[in-house]
Amino acid sequence: MRVVDLIRRKRDSGELTREEIEFLIAGYTRSEIPDYQMAAWLMAVLLKGMTRAELSALTEAMLHSGQVLDFSDLPAKKVDKHSTGGVGDKTSLVIAPVVAAGGLLVPMISGRGLGHSGGTLDKLESIPGFNVNLSLAEFRRVLATCGCALIGQTAEIAPADKKIYALRDVTGTVESPNLICASIMSKKLAEGIDALVLDVKTGSGAFMKKEEDAVHLAELMCETGRRMGKKVFALITDMDQPLGRKAGNALEIEESIEVLRGGGPDDLRELCLELSAWMFFLGGRSSGISEGKKLAAEMIATGRARDKFREIVGLQGGDAAVVDDPGRLPRARHTVDVPSPASGYVASTQCEQLGVACVVLGGGREKKEDSIDPAVGLTFHKKVGDAVSHGEPLCTIHYNSEARLAEARGLVEQSYRIEPSAPRRPRPLVHRVIGE
Amino acid sequence: MRVVDLIRRKRDSGELTREEIEFLIAGYTRSEIPDYQMAAWLMAVLLKGMTRAELSALTEAMLHSGQVLDFSDLPAKKVDKHSTGGVGDKTSLVIAPVVAAGGLLVPMISGRGLGHSGGTLDKLESIPGFNVNLSLAEFRRVLATCGCALIGQTAEIAPADKKIYALRDVTGTVESPNLICASIMSKKLAEGIDALVLDVKTGSGAFMKKEEDAVHLAELMCETGRRMGKKVFALITDMDQPLGRKAGNALEIEESIEVLRGGGPDDLRELCLELSAWMFFLGGRSSGISEGKKLAAEMIATGRARDKFREIVGLQGGDAAVVDDPGRLPRARHTVDVPSPASGYVASTQCEQLGVACVVLGGGREKKEDSIDPAVGLTFHKKVGDAVSHGEPLCTIHYNSEARLAEARGLVEQSYRIEPSAPRRPRPLVHRVIGE
Repeated sequence: MRVVDLIRRKRDSGELTREEIEFLIAGYTRSEIPDYQMAAWLMAVLLKGMTRAELSALTEAMLHSGQVLDFSDLPAKKVDKHSTGGVGDKTSLVIAPVVAAGGLLVPMISGRGLGHSGGTLDKLESIPGFNVNLSLAEFRRVLATCGCALIGQTAEIAPADKKIYALRDVTGTVESPNLICASIMSKKLAEGIDALVLDVKTGSGAFMKKEEDAVHLAELMCETGRRMGKKVFALITDMDQPLGRKAGNALEIEESIEVLRGGGPDDLRELCLELSAWMFFLGGRSSGISEGKKLAAEMIATGRARDKFREIVGLQGGDAAVVDDPGRLPRARHTVDVPSPASGYVASTQCEQLGVACVVLGGGREKKEDSIDPAVGLTFHKKVGDAVSHGEPLCTIHYNSEARLAEARGLVEQSYRIEPSAPRRPRPLVHRVIGE
Repeated sequence: MRVVDLIRRKRDSGELTREEIEFLIAGYTRSEIPDYQMAAWLMAVLLKGMTRAELSALTEAMLHSGQVLDFSDLPAKKVDKHSTGGVGDKTSLVIAPVVAAGGLLVPMISGRGLGHSGGTLDKLESIPGFNVNLSLAEFRRVLATCGCALIGQTAEIAPADKKIYALRDVTGTVESPNLICASIMSKKLAEGIDALVLDVKTGSGAFMKKEEDAVHLAELMCETGRRMGKKVFALITDMDQPLGRKAGNALEIEESIEVLRGGGPDDLRELCLELSAWMFFLGGRSSGISEGKKLAAEMIATGRARDKFREIVGLQGGDAAVVDDPGRLPRARHTVDVPSPASGYVASTQCEQLGVACVVLGGGREKKEDSIDPAVGLTFHKKVGDAVSHGEPLCTIHYNSEARLAEARGLVEQSYRIEPSAPRRPRPLVHRVIGE
């Protein structure tokens, strides 16, 4: 088997066998196949696509490049949720304790902020002492003790994905639905889960701006999961404006705690209940989605989800007192309001710009090596469809550096479109469900 | 300027500016841009194409990555010919002395055998002592002395092409008309020539099997040359069967000498006259092609071309006596005939297979490091359209190794298709001329 022949076949729109794909991925992981050959193959895949059989083979080869966790000795079903990312998307922080409180196991391996979108790990680290870098043995211990654990990708998990992801980043091969699917699914299925709920975002703050692209990716991921014997469903959800009313690491922890305490903004609470319901349903804890939503709401109303979150934070070395006193979280030294330039209604937001504003403030990374300021971010006073008077605050900026404020403020100001009349019909939160 | 943005632009069918292409090629030549980024860009170019402006910029950037020879102090016009390669294609060995004898300068930088096709340098090296590895100073001295010189690519000439070619070979990016054009033209225009005649082969023994592909490549090369101020014409010529009656390094020297002595097979002699005529015309030595053909025929008839070949061989360290006594060339120890399996007419040949048979015998390289046996090869007794009786020899195999014979013989046997009736109309030798 010659690598160059496999590159040529894909280039000419041909199909590779499972064995050929395994040969490529295993050889690349062991550095026997050089970066330049993998780069040419990745570009051919991006431009020529893959069959579903090839995609399954690729995902499995990447999955089996490392350790696949096995929690089959733990009695409950293992389920997880993955989001493709957006602005203010903090549902993991609510869902993990809700679903664990409801009797399922949630072994969640999450990511860092990427571009304009935040990351669960960065948010968790705004809790003083919280350790996301558990060993796999510690991960298992926390999971077995309290029903969920939240960590970052370790060296043992899908090393092929780590290597390929770094190469895609510098060779213009990030934007391939097939490669995105294989990357996500190889990591998620390494968690040893029985079922997975995908939250595929679409809109101005999502990576997939167009709904059809989000649906295509969701279909790829659902089918790939099913071919590997897992229950996988995807919700296509709205990211045309930030989720909830807060964006920024500590601010999002704060808002998640609000939801766990029975409050929080409607859209965030609703999406958390919806995603939790799907996890309960796929994990066999409810016979349908509405029953699952009731169970999720009950976990919040009884305080069991909040207790669970307190337990997780404590087990992972964090200051568990923040759950009852969010004032212990880092807080920016300054705030400033961004007033509405006119009276009318919020017609739309440039949601990605709002995410970039958070990065500019120091809440995200422009380069991999950048450190993060957990305290900065934005609070949103007006959502799409809300009425606003001239001069009334649209948004509050939480900042620590005057130097960074001007650029962030400019981005926020440009992000809101105010119109004299209300938008005709708000976009639904859940556009559709894929996988049924 | 970020390399990844240039890769993404080409991936998305966008156009790069001249400055961006220069940045890519200069950076890659200096190893500041890594192989993996260049590999991804080359694959995007192969699949998405280039505009003519991009192709010119690429060719010029590769040309200027090294030294561009300047023979403007030598009084005559400098012209060259390049062939895209085939089986038995030995015209350079005849044309260089014919055109030099006719008063033009031919600074010819040639290549080695590639795949099933032979290479001028390998053929020349079958002449005992012939040195193709002249320095550029020696190249100039031989050219100035006798009007032509035949060498291989040196480290000074188009180093970007050398590096890119090696990368294309292992990344499945060889078969791009744009990249082929830039590779050929950057090397040829580094010769400091005024005009170039291209012999673009098409048919079963050519790299471009389909005529439309050959025409497309020819058009790219002609336009690229013209954009750089050079006279460039291309002849699309037939490679559906071997050219002449001999293939193999020493055997082709022998047949070239036959033509220089006024003999040789019709097709080979005709194509040599045609190509020489175009060189005379473009170099201003004749007012048209038919006058150019007369001049070329005269150079052969008067013995001046043969004298010139003797002179070149001598100046480049070779045994000049071979020109009058080809028996001094290496000769295989054994020969065996391949008889016709039936009576009828030769309907077609699998020309590439015949070239592969020569490689198998040791006349070409399977790997770059392989050494070449100059003596082995094939003589063809029957051309397409010829009548043949059952058992009559189609071909003679010249071999030195019994071990290699069986495979070569099998290839030759499978290469001839014998039909009961004569093929309706033979393909013309010159299909068309591009650049007019």
